[in-house]
Amino acid sequence: MIFLTRRATFSASHYYWNDSWTAEKNEQVFGRCSNRNGHGHNYTLEVTVVGEPNPETGFVIDLKGLKNLIEREVLADWDHRHLNLEVAEFAKTIPTSENIAIAAWKRLEKGIANGSGARLSKVRVWETPEIFAEFEGEA
Amino acid sequence: MIFLTRRATFSASHYYWNDSWTAEKNEQVFGRCSNRNGHGHNYTLEVTVVGEPNPETGFVIDLKGLKNLIEREVLADWDHRHLNLEVAEFAKTIPTSENIAIAAWKRLEKGIANGSGARLSKVRVWETPEIFAEFEGEA
Amino acid sequence: MIFLTRRATFSASHYYWNDSWTAEKNEQVFGRCSNRNGHGHNYTLEVTVVGEPNPETGFVIDLKGLKNLIEREVLADWDHRHLNLEVAEFAKTIPTSENIAIAAWKRLEKGIANGSGARLSKVRVWETPEIFAEFEGEA
Amino acid sequence: MIFLTRRATFSASHYYWNDSWTAEKNEQVFGRCSNRNGHGHNYTLEVTVVGEPNPETGFVIDLKGLKNLIEREVLADWDHRHLNLEVAEFAKTIPTSENIAIAAWKRLEKGIANGSGARLSKVRVWETPEIFAEFEGEA
Amino acid sequence: MIFLTRRATFSASHYYWNDSWTAEKNEQVFGRCSNRNGHGHNYTLEVTVVGEPNPETGFVIDLKGLKNLIEREVLADWDHRHLNLEVAEFAKTIPTSENIAIAAWKRLEKGIANGSGARLSKVRVWETPEIFAEFEGEA
Amino acid sequence: MIFLTRRATFSASHYYWNDSWTAEKNEQVFGRCSNRNGHGHNYTLEVTVVGEPNPETGFVIDLKGLKNLIEREVLADWDHRHLNLEVAEFAKTIPTSENIAIAAWKRLEKGIANGSGARLSKVRVWETPEIFAEFEGEA
Repeated sequence: MIFLTRRATFSASHYYWNDSWTAEKNEQVFGRCSNRNGHGHNYTLEVTVVGEPNPETGFVIDLKGLKNLIEREVLADWDHRHLNLEVAEFAKTIPTSENIAIAAWKRLEKGIANGSGARLSKVRVWETPEIFAEFEGEA
Repeated sequence: MIFLTRRATFSASHYYWNDSWTAEKNEQVFGRCSNRNGHGHNYTLEVTVVGEPNPETGFVIDLKGLKNLIEREVLADWDHRHLNLEVAEFAKTIPTSENIAIAAWKRLEKGIANGSGARLSKVRVWETPEIFAEFEGEA
Repeated sequence: MIFLTRRATFSASHYYWNDSWTAEKNEQVFGRCSNRNGHGHNYTLEVTVVGEPNPETGFVIDLKGLKNLIEREVLADWDHRHLNLEVAEFAKTIPTSENIAIAAWKRLEKGIANGSGARLSKVRVWETPEIFAEFEGEA
Repeated sequence: MIFLTRRATFSASHYYWNDSWTAEKNEQVFGRCSNRNGHGHNYTLEVTVVGEPNPETGFVIDLKGLKNLIEREVLADWDHRHLNLEVAEFAKTIPTSENIAIAAWKRLEKGIANGSGARLSKVRVWETPEIFAEFEGEA
Repeated sequence: MIFLTRRATFSASHYYWNDSWTAEKNEQVFGRCSNRNGHGHNYTLEVTVVGEPNPETGFVIDLKGLKNLIEREVLADWDHRHLNLEVAEFAKTIPTSENIAIAAWKRLEKGIANGSGARLSKVRVWETPEIFAEFEGEA
Repeated sequence: MIFLTRRATFSASHYYWNDSWTAEKNEQVFGRCSNRNGHGHNYTLEVTVVGEPNPETGFVIDLKGLKNLIEREVLADWDHRHLNLEVAEFAKTIPTSENIAIAAWKRLEKGIANGSGARLSKVRVWETPEIFAEFEGEA
């Protein structure tokens, strides 16, 4: 088994806010991240697939196809967007790195399984060069 | 003369919009950056000062003092903010990397000159790891 | 389960020396690292915790709390220090990257378990951009 | 158990070509990578070994020995070479990142096991800063 | 005046060879770089333009236009190519980083001047993360 | 004219201390850097030379020769050393990044001028990824 990873980047805004809390509690828990005008990040998304290299191509998965899948399923909706206001997964879920990793997994899992012998193994999301979250599926 | 540079980072939202244009023209010129919900970046600010090392300390400028100045004059107002909506310089000026570099220069120039023999030499602003703007003053 | 990682950096001196060996053997085994005046590194510490995101916050662990814990339990004692001469764990243990990773784990494990549903999953220590050690606990 | 990783870099040319296919199919599947003049990369090789730190040295493996092994077993044959034309493993196997990782594993596995209590745990090959493959052995 | 820089990357093969020399002298001077099978790099190209920000857009130059120019004038011919064998400038000129920087300048200078108030200020070419060449024009 | 830059790295210890001051003043001015046990860094040295590419080689300077010069004149004395205790330039001069850049310039200037048409243009010293000093000569 070989693991193959491709990186992609997107720029987006977000804020942290729990509607069931008071403004005071939101500010106490989330600090500067609770600013409702939003702030933003250059996110880096690392998508890892696992499988056997195809003996005819040497590929676990076609990297151009994987790039296109990431652009179509994730970046088209997330890049240059406000995650809380414009992305369906974050209408009621706080767009922390943890939740962004889970949402990216759900958007990518099927497309990777279709038409290749590989499967999604891990999604890593860097919010800054100092912080990243990883999700390896529900199992 | 020695040049000494310190980096700092901040996360902010912005959009590109010219109020004297139609929505169509804004979208045509600025593309995805014209999304009024905003998008964001991890900005890196590089502040370069120039001077002679003080023979008693070996410092062109005290780096802890420079760090505090950057935090007080720039990051306190810009980090985790929406530049268009919350930062005075960008109320009527589009917060491109170019204009962010000029604005940072104006906020830092006097504080660096005060109390040190050094002067501000350059401000560099990275919007992403692929794009940066530099300003070296009006001269 | 989600893995969440935060990086922190510290600058420290160290040397490699086994007191039960002759100077010749120390120099033969450890080479330039056996210089008793010490040399130093910018270390990067990556601390990974694992858990379920809290549905109210979207956090596996509060990142500000984790940052404070790393600073209080590790950096306060290690940053700008000589590891062999000033840090308890390395009084008799050679401060290789391997042993630094184990020592950081022991300092962080309880603090992460306290007051959160998360637990420490991995400590990674970069000695240079070319070399890193990882420890995932005793199990 | 501690994991210890060392990076090394090499510059090489390659192309993607399946001799049992027509030129048209090679170009259709491999795109610009099928150019028979070759193109190249700065590859980064990350070699991870796992073991217990030796109580006398604090080392899982001697890093200078590991560096020498990587240079002797891999870089001496691969650096500044055309992988398809000059490297035995790729005479009939397409030098994708996946296959390069497997080939590096085979070249390093025995040398790491010999004369140390450690064993090879993972080989990671970066083809660009956006793409990497990992192999953890046949098991 | 503001300087604005955009990075782009390309992967290419090359070798160093002076046709007027013997094979022995080529190998003596150029070492492993004289291998006629070629070796390769992930090159990073940094293009810096200088000008005044347009008051209507805040741009020194439209970055999307600059990206397209770099792709059309440079990357379309150089990416995934063998510089010695396939690129006109290097038919008789050795493709060192120095000469690559000059060649990129010549390909970009006019396109940047056309249709903008900006001009090309600097081209930087990274051959590896350890080596780069810069050209600022003939003046 | 072309500028050509090569990076090199070294690991060293240092502290900041002015012998003509009291311990209190040293601690007040230099903070944690005044710890007499020393602390350390992975320094990166960037050496820039300027000249015309030699028409026979395409080189401003032979990079292997430049690497050897940096190793012989700088790294042999500085790498894995305590700068205050073991390096002549810092016996009485505080080893700040500023003073390290000046000292590296003095060690390299003549060797670069000898036997090449190039001359030293700039020395940049990174103490951490956030801080660097640059020296361009006395002129």
